[in-house]
Amino acid sequence: MAAQTVASTSNPLTSVDLGPAAALACRECGHRVPLGPVFACEECFGPLEIAYDFSAYDTEDLRKRIEAGPANIWRYAPLLPVPADVAEKPNINPGWTKLVKADNLAGELGVTGGLYVKDDSGNPTHSFKDRVVAQALEAARVFGFTTLSCSSTGNLAGAVGAAAARAGFRSCVFIPHDLEQGKVVMAAVYGGELVGIEGNYDDVNRFCSELIGDPAGEGWGFVNVNLRPYYAEGSKTLAYEICEQLGWRLPDQLVVPIASGSQLTKIDKGLQELIKLGLVEDKPYKIFGAQAEGCSPVSVAYKAGHDVVRPQKPDTIAKSLAIGNPADGPYVLDIARRTGGAVEDVNDEQIVDAIKLLARTEGIFAETAGGVTVGVTRKLIENGVLDPTLTTVVLNTGDGLKTLDAVAGTGLTATIRPNLDSFREAGLA
Amino acid sequence: MAAQTVASTSNPLTSVDLGPAAALACRECGHRVPLGPVFACEECFGPLEIAYDFSAYDTEDLRKRIEAGPANIWRYAPLLPVPADVAEKPNINPGWTKLVKADNLAGELGVTGGLYVKDDSGNPTHSFKDRVVAQALEAARVFGFTTLSCSSTGNLAGAVGAAAARAGFRSCVFIPHDLEQGKVVMAAVYGGELVGIEGNYDDVNRFCSELIGDPAGEGWGFVNVNLRPYYAEGSKTLAYEICEQLGWRLPDQLVVPIASGSQLTKIDKGLQELIKLGLVEDKPYKIFGAQAEGCSPVSVAYKAGHDVVRPQKPDTIAKSLAIGNPADGPYVLDIARRTGGAVEDVNDEQIVDAIKLLARTEGIFAETAGGVTVGVTRKLIENGVLDPTLTTVVLNTGDGLKTLDAVAGTGLTATIRPNLDSFREAGLA
Repeated sequence: MAAQTVASTSNPLTSVDLGPAAALACRECGHRVPLGPVFACEECFGPLEIAYDFSAYDTEDLRKRIEAGPANIWRYAPLLPVPADVAEKPNINPGWTKLVKADNLAGELGVTGGLYVKDDSGNPTHSFKDRVVAQALEAARVFGFTTLSCSSTGNLAGAVGAAAARAGFRSCVFIPHDLEQGKVVMAAVYGGELVGIEGNYDDVNRFCSELIGDPAGEGWGFVNVNLRPYYAEGSKTLAYEICEQLGWRLPDQLVVPIASGSQLTKIDKGLQELIKLGLVEDKPYKIFGAQAEGCSPVSVAYKAGHDVVRPQKPDTIAKSLAIGNPADGPYVLDIARRTGGAVEDVNDEQIVDAIKLLARTEGIFAETAGGVTVGVTRKLIENGVLDPTLTTVVLNTGDGLKTLDAVAGTGLTATIRPNLDSFREAGLA
Repeated sequence: MAAQTVASTSNPLTSVDLGPAAALACRECGHRVPLGPVFACEECFGPLEIAYDFSAYDTEDLRKRIEAGPANIWRYAPLLPVPADVAEKPNINPGWTKLVKADNLAGELGVTGGLYVKDDSGNPTHSFKDRVVAQALEAARVFGFTTLSCSSTGNLAGAVGAAAARAGFRSCVFIPHDLEQGKVVMAAVYGGELVGIEGNYDDVNRFCSELIGDPAGEGWGFVNVNLRPYYAEGSKTLAYEICEQLGWRLPDQLVVPIASGSQLTKIDKGLQELIKLGLVEDKPYKIFGAQAEGCSPVSVAYKAGHDVVRPQKPDTIAKSLAIGNPADGPYVLDIARRTGGAVEDVNDEQIVDAIKLLARTEGIFAETAGGVTVGVTRKLIENGVLDPTLTTVVLNTGDGLKTLDAVAGTGLTATIRPNLDSFREAGLA
């Protein structure tokens, strides 16, 4: 592992202002190091995450401060690793997306306890990735990076390109050289460097790790590598928003997609923080993980009762979830079991059906990942695992316009000549 | 003209609750008729628009009521033809989209007075059409319609399909039968009837007018035909939001795209209302209209000093603006001249350049219509027509994901092998 990726106390960055973030703490051994652009523990190589000091907060003051904040993730600045004046800086400002009361979908699925869709297609580049990239960007600014980078095959590339453009960073995004033209355009339009790597996604990732350890990578913030501890915290805002939009209430059940598993673990972390801060009542909630059958390592491990996850080679239309070796898989298993949730998967046909179901009932056109969560919700209800009498929140993390191919079979319901006789013949009257 | 399209006092619908909407008034002769699903004056066939009774409002009470309202267009319910409890009803709830302070773009264009982009790609189906459809839907509900319909070649079809799905209406959208597959999918996914008409867009429109006058069309609300007076009012919310987001200030200059011209005229109406209600200071503002050169009937008329608009056959990549015979063209000319604005057009190459400029500087990926407004802004500054020392708001009314073809030439900036030597050779370090 390259030197830069491991925390070093010789470079403590003690002057770093990242608000309530106090240190980086190892998720495995608890070892703490100062805040910096590092992601792996120097003691045990476990993942580092942000440790906070929230001790000074008064619950009602904090609630008022949040409610008076901007209509984006920075309303939660007191709970994030960002400076207090973050909202004044140029960034893509994602979040505060709609929590849609999905009464029509509830009717179809037989949910009587209240069903909600947290619709993150409303973010600036139309996926939840804007949340994590916005967060990584602020860390990059504090650490003095001038280039924002990532490896990607889709949503992340656009989010990085857009945020870097707004904030005046150089961006350099690495993708497999043979990506579909549509995805290339979506990433290239923001005008940053877009570099095709001759190889597959694993080759791209390996190259990025190499670059971080090399002088050539100096000044480069890789949002999902050396900035990962900060980046990952962006997902906490989903938990905060859901609870605030429910009137500072915890939902009883949440259905969350699993790619690396990071999002699910951070949603759990966010809910725990709200409880500890007194912003919501301390009561149980269940978190359900959703995967595609064609990339279901966590679901398979859950069903087998395993604590570790066996890697898979992905083969699914849900490409934004297609991580065969999810880093946070074991943590996801722990959370699903601890909260009384579960992990389930659906196949490609069920994903497409669920995309259409959500669109038909709620007018929300979801990415394939949204088809996964809605499809899994349906399956969990049918199997008696998810309780339809409880308040349930289902995440849609992306936009159907980015995965049009999945529903390419959808088309005209009739073709007629431009006259009333033809209209009547078609049975449309 | 069919009987239903002309207001009849024999069916006064006196029990209609559309909030402050008091009547329909003819824009040409001023003749007033009761609220109903009609759009043309029975006296002169002029267009009907909503007349309001705002006499009971106290300015500061109204301001507080708006500011305490939901983060969507219904915060302005007191100024719209909707019942007071509109926010409780199922609808797509568009609006309250971001007003982005575009400092990077301002730098490139030399604007020193403050440049903002009102980014309506943040709406539920990613275009401003959600605003007008949401409004039409509420009128349809009040009038007892059960089917929501329209003729469309793009954004409108999706907006109608999505809103109808959410609100539990049947939808039936008419499109030319040979529309591109991608556009068909975007409209079809919501599960309503999607009917291809064997003919061009004019044939589709003609058929819809025929259907409205026929018993087969009973119970059908065509958002942009028999519900047009209500539908069109949705565009006022753009004016309200811009002013509120500026801190209840009028911008000095606005650059607005022209398709039918309705949006521009309603933005002017909205600004005038805010002035009369005392919500903003009474000061001059200039409205500039933006067209594509390949469909520039209003721009041509403006430059020739004409009061009437000569129809054109559209040929431009800005398809969402490609209305060759814009109904509100004369009103647009009047507003541009009265306010000291102008109407200008840009060609397809300039549109593409402007899409890339906006993406590169602000991380906003605009539809071709957004390329038109940004491109026209640049041209107006270069020509000394738009004053760069004044506060300027440019509208982006749609999303680049819907018009990917326009920037299909955008691609990789480099292709390398997955190693550092190749990276250095490419000059990326």
